[in-house]
Amino acid sequence: MSDQPFQPTREAVEAAHERLGGLAHRTPVLTSAFFNQRLGAELFFKCENFQKVGAFKFRGAFNTVASLSEEERARGVATHSSGNHAQALALAAQMHGIDAHIVMPENAPSVKQNAVRGYGANVILCEPTIDAREVTLCKVLEETGGVMVHPYNDPRIIAGQATSAKELLEDVNDLDAVLAPIGGGGLAAGTALSAEYFSPSTKVYGVEPAGAADAQLSLKTGTIQPSKNPQTIADGLLTHLGEHTFAVIRRRIEDILTVTDDVLIETMRLVWERMKIVIEPSAAVPLAMLLDGGLDIRGKRVGVIFSGGNVDLNGLPWAH
Amino acid sequence: MSDQPFQPTREAVEAAHERLGGLAHRTPVLTSAFFNQRLGAELFFKCENFQKVGAFKFRGAFNTVASLSEEERARGVATHSSGNHAQALALAAQMHGIDAHIVMPENAPSVKQNAVRGYGANVILCEPTIDAREVTLCKVLEETGGVMVHPYNDPRIIAGQATSAKELLEDVNDLDAVLAPIGGGGLAAGTALSAEYFSPSTKVYGVEPAGAADAQLSLKTGTIQPSKNPQTIADGLLTHLGEHTFAVIRRRIEDILTVTDDVLIETMRLVWERMKIVIEPSAAVPLAMLLDGGLDIRGKRVGVIFSGGNVDLNGLPWAH
Repeated sequence: MSDQPFQPTREAVEAAHERLGGLAHRTPVLTSAFFNQRLGAELFFKCENFQKVGAFKFRGAFNTVASLSEEERARGVATHSSGNHAQALALAAQMHGIDAHIVMPENAPSVKQNAVRGYGANVILCEPTIDAREVTLCKVLEETGGVMVHPYNDPRIIAGQATSAKELLEDVNDLDAVLAPIGGGGLAAGTALSAEYFSPSTKVYGVEPAGAADAQLSLKTGTIQPSKNPQTIADGLLTHLGEHTFAVIRRRIEDILTVTDDVLIETMRLVWERMKIVIEPSAAVPLAMLLDGGLDIRGKRVGVIFSGGNVDLNGLPWAH
Repeated sequence: MSDQPFQPTREAVEAAHERLGGLAHRTPVLTSAFFNQRLGAELFFKCENFQKVGAFKFRGAFNTVASLSEEERARGVATHSSGNHAQALALAAQMHGIDAHIVMPENAPSVKQNAVRGYGANVILCEPTIDAREVTLCKVLEETGGVMVHPYNDPRIIAGQATSAKELLEDVNDLDAVLAPIGGGGLAAGTALSAEYFSPSTKVYGVEPAGAADAQLSLKTGTIQPSKNPQTIADGLLTHLGEHTFAVIRRRIEDILTVTDDVLIETMRLVWERMKIVIEPSAAVPLAMLLDGGLDIRGKRVGVIFSGGNVDLNGLPWAH
């Protein structure tokens, strides 16, 4: 994973899009008179919450599995994840008829473990520390010979995630900007590449929780900063950047902005109430930043990627 | 309101659809591999939760206001409602630049009162009994000369609600059946008429909560039965049928089925989790009945109308 940064070409993004055709959902782009009025702008929401497994992660995982050689497929795939990547890789493997070994922390909600098993994957539980996850994954890779599929720091993953913005830019012309949440940077880097290749005048912004602002700091300092003790409800945005994602982000992303969890929770709730769709906390981050006045978009046409919709309905942040 | 039942003609439904063109949302039809698999059928969900004011009610209210004469419009409109009809009529009046007087029980959530006021309507509070609501409305009608707009028992309302199924039948061909929730019967009667006029081989079923099964009893006995002390979380389905809605329903509806609140709540939650959309309890009733095995649809193509998405996110039925 730690070789020289390699940026997916335009052809790689187009090839990913073709692989996904008819197998991933071409997710809808929704608008909201309410948010347009609030922001004095025209907003276009790309709804990856409607994607397979409920998040954009399916795009990258599927593209990566589809890119494997026959020999690699025979060995199966493996990763560690407690989140959307686990389900995405499990489903992508199932659709290709190959084995998937997913290392999950033993405190991962049983509903998530069962979802991964439901896609036919082999779930290996470990202690809930990053060290235990990596050691366990190493063992699994040794035993199975499986191909490690990283959740974001891989050009095939980035090319897959890029297809979301590619579709958005095809469906909505003349966008002044596109905003994506930023965690490990797979979606943000992919979005930046699709803008570069398919709509060069469109600016791309990354947005992250104020309590996990390592990407903003990485951009400022010019080197990847670790995600130290991140404090946010946006559980999809806890990780730091990787060299592949950072190389694209520092070159092509206009800026990285932040928003507090309070605004983010209120925004998530507003989206549920006003748009009648379920988005997860991580997905609400870019719109929350806009509602908080973090970027002036008055009079502009702005795309926002709603990255996913996987929420524990028993633990809503506004429930008392 | 109590004249001879008058059934909207095919032309009346078509005229309603034209009036609504570009002013109501043509709501999307969604599918779900999960529910298709569970039921062994092909399901098509008409998403009125995405309609203006978050419910199909906007269709009927708008059609009625748009049908008024110049003289009637000058007098404004009035109704009593604590639910979706209040917002629907308020918005329809605002869009026509006429006055709306909405009698609401004083215990209606302030968020609902404010939503109605937000559409520029005059809200008159009264004690939370049906008697008080009717007496207060009478006074309002006397004082303002406004035109009473009934929430369901009016051919113009029925013609408006019929446009939802008309769109569904245009977007999805060869439906074996369409299912709609049934409360006062405006949506169910409209759905039955659109099937009759635009897809005669499609059967229509109404579904209501087991704790408010007055429509089923009305169909069995051949006379409108009162809704006695209804016990259900589906707050949009508490009322009894009216003579206009019943006349259509008894003639053209295949059957009226019921489902318990337990199944209904579980189904609502499943829809949020699996489809990532917010539907209200009343909207979950037909799918809940299917999941509970109330009607055999294996191998069939079935439309389901998700009637609305207005839910108090602070009081979710599964929250502890």
